[in-house]
This record gives sequence, structure tokens and C-alpha cells, in this order.
Amino acid sequence: MAIVLHRPRVSGAAGRVPSSTIRDLLALTADDRVLSLAGGLPAVGHVHDQVLADLAAQVLADPAAAQYGTTEGWAPLRAWAAGTLADPPADPADVRITHGSQQALDLVVRTLVDPGDAVVVEHPTYLGAAQVLAAADAAVTAVPVDDDGIDIARLADALAAGLRPRLCYLAPTYQNPSGVVMSAERRIQLGGLADRYGFVVVDDDPYRDLGFAPPPPRLRAGVPPEWSVTLGTASKVLAPGLRVGWVHGPGWLIDPLTRLKQAADLHTSTAAQRLVAEAVTRPGWLEGRAIRLTALYRHRAGVLASALRRAAGDRLTFAAPRGGMFLWARLARGRATDLLPAALARGVAFVPGAAFALADPPDDHLRLCFATLGDDDLRTAADRLAAALH
Amino acid sequence: MAIVLHRPRVSGAAGRVPSSTIRDLLALTADDRVLSLAGGLPAVGHVHDQVLADLAAQVLADPAAAQYGTTEGWAPLRAWAAGTLADPPADPADVRITHGSQQALDLVVRTLVDPGDAVVVEHPTYLGAAQVLAAADAAVTAVPVDDDGIDIARLADALAAGLRPRLCYLAPTYQNPSGVVMSAERRIQLGGLADRYGFVVVDDDPYRDLGFAPPPPRLRAGVPPEWSVTLGTASKVLAPGLRVGWVHGPGWLIDPLTRLKQAADLHTSTAAQRLVAEAVTRPGWLEGRAIRLTALYRHRAGVLASALRRAAGDRLTFAAPRGGMFLWARLARGRATDLLPAALARGVAFVPGAAFALADPPDDHLRLCFATLGDDDLRTAADRLAAALH
Repeated sequence: MAIVLHRPRVSGAAGRVPSSTIRDLLALTADDRVLSLAGGLPAVGHVHDQVLADLAAQVLADPAAAQYGTTEGWAPLRAWAAGTLADPPADPADVRITHGSQQALDLVVRTLVDPGDAVVVEHPTYLGAAQVLAAADAAVTAVPVDDDGIDIARLADALAAGLRPRLCYLAPTYQNPSGVVMSAERRIQLGGLADRYGFVVVDDDPYRDLGFAPPPPRLRAGVPPEWSVTLGTASKVLAPGLRVGWVHGPGWLIDPLTRLKQAADLHTSTAAQRLVAEAVTRPGWLEGRAIRLTALYRHRAGVLASALRRAAGDRLTFAAPRGGMFLWARLARGRATDLLPAALARGVAFVPGAAFALADPPDDHLRLCFATLGDDDLRTAADRLAAALH
Repeated sequence: MAIVLHRPRVSGAAGRVPSSTIRDLLALTADDRVLSLAGGLPAVGHVHDQVLADLAAQVLADPAAAQYGTTEGWAPLRAWAAGTLADPPADPADVRITHGSQQALDLVVRTLVDPGDAVVVEHPTYLGAAQVLAAADAAVTAVPVDDDGIDIARLADALAAGLRPRLCYLAPTYQNPSGVVMSAERRIQLGGLADRYGFVVVDDDPYRDLGFAPPPPRLRAGVPPEWSVTLGTASKVLAPGLRVGWVHGPGWLIDPLTRLKQAADLHTSTAAQRLVAEAVTRPGWLEGRAIRLTALYRHRAGVLASALRRAAGDRLTFAAPRGGMFLWARLARGRATDLLPAALARGVAFVPGAAFALADPPDDHLRLCFATLGDDDLRTAADRLAAALH
């Protein structure tokens, strides 16, 4: 008989990453009768055309696209990504291509954070960031977001009181989930704090091209270059299914990040990088997609907001979305996690606010995605949600 | 003036991952005048046809291929990967699709290993594994490989003396770099040790379809299912540039691994997974590629071996390769790291054996890739290497 001296046991990192509420929800919403406002699926079908298919055939006709590539990434794509950054201009040598911006975030955190290191996030924050920080065993301080973004006075107080974060992770432009845009004044103040206390500022900026008005400057305009990291992605306007993102940052961070990337997966798909490079450098094509998607999302945000106001009245309050893909609504009373089973029973799904924080969850909020469903479905979903509220 | 209280500093994990010798070499071999036996580039051009391009166009014509997918992976591809495993049969529910098998390895290690945990590897071992284990701060025990694979008696002694590894990582079939095939007897013995002491056995098996004779059974045939992990990849026969691999293992490991994968990059490229699924399920096509590549590699291995025997004589000794992509040669005298600058000066590159171990490096060896270059280049490379040996 075998003498089992060790039983199966997983690492601390694996044990710390919580199961995602979205994961569990997506399992529930696989039921076709449920209208999902829960996912964050871009309307890729709406802007679908033959271009990606044609370019994919062109790229794969070259056997070099099927070969190994460098860990740094495909040079023309790095050059393009650097070109999207101005004020100050960016050097392609400081750009790395990643398997989506989620990987960029994971690599930045693994490059900077040892267990117990302090990290600042917005409250609420992107749930993918919460998972990465849980795996890294970061000591997370969540600073509330108001209508002008993260509360800089509170952050300044915490720093003055001794908080010494390794990094501050923000999605300051049409934030997921709150939709908030950080004010220009606070962006400058944050840069001053980064300079004074010495911490990396990560600007996760996937929704920049999906604003209903011109976007604000990027965070990096006000942050010292040695502390400034910017994440970008092809997921929101081009195609999430290609998993192509990028990270720009100072050499002291990007060089060790590259070694971790090599250990993590050698390099990002050569074929996907070449396909994205061909697509984004096609004159006017990407811009056209962004314009069509933004018009669609603006329209859908309006449809959902009107339908919610009509059906739910003062039981839900929210600011009109200014861009991105999400409407962040507050319950007049009750808890969103309690509302969810009733909503699912009536055929509508959403993400409870509690998913967007590691502690002190904002459970009086719900995140509603307006990007995916058509007008009629959005109205039906609002009616079902209102019925569940009763 | 700014008072910088924190200076830039990277995490322990980032600091521990060494710069790869291959990375540094690839920079040198970008010079067209250098014939590279250093890289491990499959001869994708040799088996190139229009099929991948046609399938890519077909896949990308469906907007669903551009959309987000599940972290677990595309179900038809998981089913296919499970189907490549027999004795015992595998359940697709226990398969996850990863961004190459390098990511699978990184995720397995992150799921199992806390800093300081013991891990057993072969000596020499795959350098990508060495990087992953360095990042994880594993306490690595390297057990020598002889002509029958890892020295099981030595491993048994170490276990009896108290070694308690979390996992044992092996590439037992045409190992990179040594080319060795682990004997059937040792495979069964290893399974017995895993059962007795309770540790995960990782069978990294990329070269299985590139053997010059029928391959041995997989390790999992002799390892208890709860301790058995198998890695697979589309990189060696299909296309490394697509970055599609997979991992099969027990639920207690695969479930938390899935949460780490979600944090790491959400999911593997939808488009790449669908493309690979279409390609590998095309009747006879993948098998045809494997047959053509194996015949080519067998021929090239013979060309390189003959040229080395003729040009270098007894200054280099090696066993005839039995499969895979590498010839592992031993220097009669001197150190491979000392030989490298002379070889580069004469226009030939290789990887010194020292790259394939974390400690006690086998610096009397060189790894020579016979997969990439054509016959004339292989002969010229052998002549240049022999000249450098003088």
C-alpha cells in the first residue's frame, strides 16, 4: 500500500486568488433565456467586416508568421503602440507586446511587488486587477473614487501618514466599473505625489477611444517618466479574441519585466502581432471602427439609461455614462448580491459592486454593461431588473 | 525639489530570473554572417502550405473568433488535446489551453510552489523551466540524466534521505537539450516514487511526434492520476508563432491553475485556438506534417553528425540523436563558454551546456540544433565549429 507522505496542496498564490464573480455568473448566463448586462463583451459583430479575415490570410501565407519571435514583441507593432503615446513622446524600445493588457498588468505587478508590499487602487477597481494583486499577496489600500476620480486628498493623507506603495493602479478614463473620468487637476496632483514619494503610476487605459467626448490627457503627461507605466490593448476597438496588448514604461522596470515575460510564455503570438500591426496601420480603418463603436455605445447607453429611469425610477440612481462600456448604478436600498438571484430568476444578469473591491465592497452598486445587447434587449433587461427590484 | 523617498526597485521574483543565454545569443546571431545552431527554431518553412492561411481567413470571417472566450479554453480544442492522451484516457474537463506550453509550465509552478519549496529537475534541464523555477524561488534539486533518462536510484536516495519535492519536472522523450529518452523501467519506477512520497510529475512532451522511432509511453501511464501532469504544444509540428499549448492534470491542481490563468491573461487567444482546432482536426494533415518534419530532422541530424565527426574528430563526442531537434555534444577538453566567442568569431553559434542548469553547469557540453539549417549550412557550421575547437 502506498504511504502518501504529502497530500495535494496548492501554493499560497493559487489559494489567494478568489474565484471571479464574473466567472461564476458567466456560467449562469450561458442560459439563453438570461439577458446579460454582466459581461464586458465589445460589440465586435457590429463592426465586423472582411478586413481581419483577409489580413489573417495574408499574414499566415508567410511562414515567418508561424515562427518563434522575440520576447520584446514585433517591432512594427511596438513602433505603432509608441506612436499612440504623445506628450511626452514614447520610444518603441520602452514598449513590450503582451498577451492582452491583463498580462501586462500581471507582469508589472510581478515585476514590482513582493508579498506584503503596499499597492494603491481605486475603490471600486477593475476586478482583474484585484485578482492579480491577490495572487501577488499585495497589501492593498483602496482609495475611494468620486465624480472626479480617485480622492487625491485621501491618498495624500495616507502617504503623509506613512503609506509607501510600490505602485498605484488606476483606470482613470471611463473607469471599469464606475465610468468616472479623473479630472485634469487630480492627474497633475497624482504625478506630484508619485514624484515626491516615489511610486509607479499604472495608467490602464482600454476605453480611451470609446469616449462620448474627447478624452483627457493620459496620466503620463503629469507623471515623471521613471514612475510612469501605460497599458494599452487591441481588445476594445479591434478584437479581444486576438489577445494583444502592450505596456510602456521606464527601462529599469521594462527590462526585468521582459525576463518575467520570457519565463511566462516566451513571447506573444507572432501571427496575432503581425495581424494587429497590419490592421492598425491600415489608413483610417481603426479610427472608423472606433467612431462606429463609440456611436453605438453612446446610443445604447442612452437606451439603457432611459429604460432604467422609466422602469426603476428612484430605486436606482446613476450618472449618465461619458464613455466606455459600463453604467454604474446605485441601489436606493438593499444589497446587490441579494438582488442578483431575483434578477437571474427574472432573466437578467449584472455584476454586483462587491466584485470590484478586495475589502469593504460597494454592495449598494451594480455594474451594467450597455455595449453588448441591442435596443430591445436592453429595454427588456431594464424591465426585468425593475421587476426584481420590487 | 522632489524628495524621493523610494527609489526604483524590482521584486525578488524579477531579480531572480536570469537573463537567458539564448536571448543574449539571439542578439548576436541576428548577424546574417553567423550560422546559428543555437536557436530551437522548427523548420516551419519546410512544411509550409496554404492550409493555415485558408483556415485563418475562415476562422476570422466569424466575429465570434474575435470575441472574448473562457479561461478554460475552446472546447473542441480541449477535446482534441484530451484525445491525444490514452492509457489511461483523459477527460477534456481536465485540460486547459494555454499561451504555449511555456505558460502551462509557469502556471503549474505558480499553482504548486511557494518560495523555498523543493522541486526536482533533470540535469541538464530545459532552460525555460530553469527560468520559471528561479522566478518562483524554488529550491531546485537537479538529478543527473544518463542514457536512460533521469537517474532514478539517485532520486530515490534523495527522497529516502528526506527530500520532499512539490513536483518533479521532466522532459523524458527526446529531452531538450540532451535528446535522451527515459527508459520504460525508470518511468514505472518514477511513478512508484510519486505514489509513495506524494509529488506531482510534470511530463513536458513537445517532441513526441518528432522521434526517429516510435515514441515510448507517456509518463502518465505509470504515475497515479492525482500526481500526473502532462504538457502539450502546437509549437513543434504546427506553428510556434501561434502560441497554443495545453496542460492536463488532476482537478485539485487544474481548478486553482485556472484562476491563476484568469489573472495572468484572462484566456488564450480565441482566434488562435479556433485556428489550431480547425487545423489539427483536418484528417491526416497534422500527421503528414509530423512525418515530413521527422524525415527532414532525421536527415539533418545525420548530416550534422557526419560533418562533426569528419571535421572535429575526437574533440567532440555525442550519441546519435533519436528524435527531437538537438544534438548534445561533449567537449574532450575545455569549456563551452570559452569556446563560444571563438565560434562566433568564425561565424557559428551554439548554446553552451551551462545554460541548461541552475547550478553545477555542464560546461563541457554544447547544444546544437539540427532542425533549422539546410545541409550545406550544417556542414559549413560544423567546419567552423571544428576550426574554433583548434
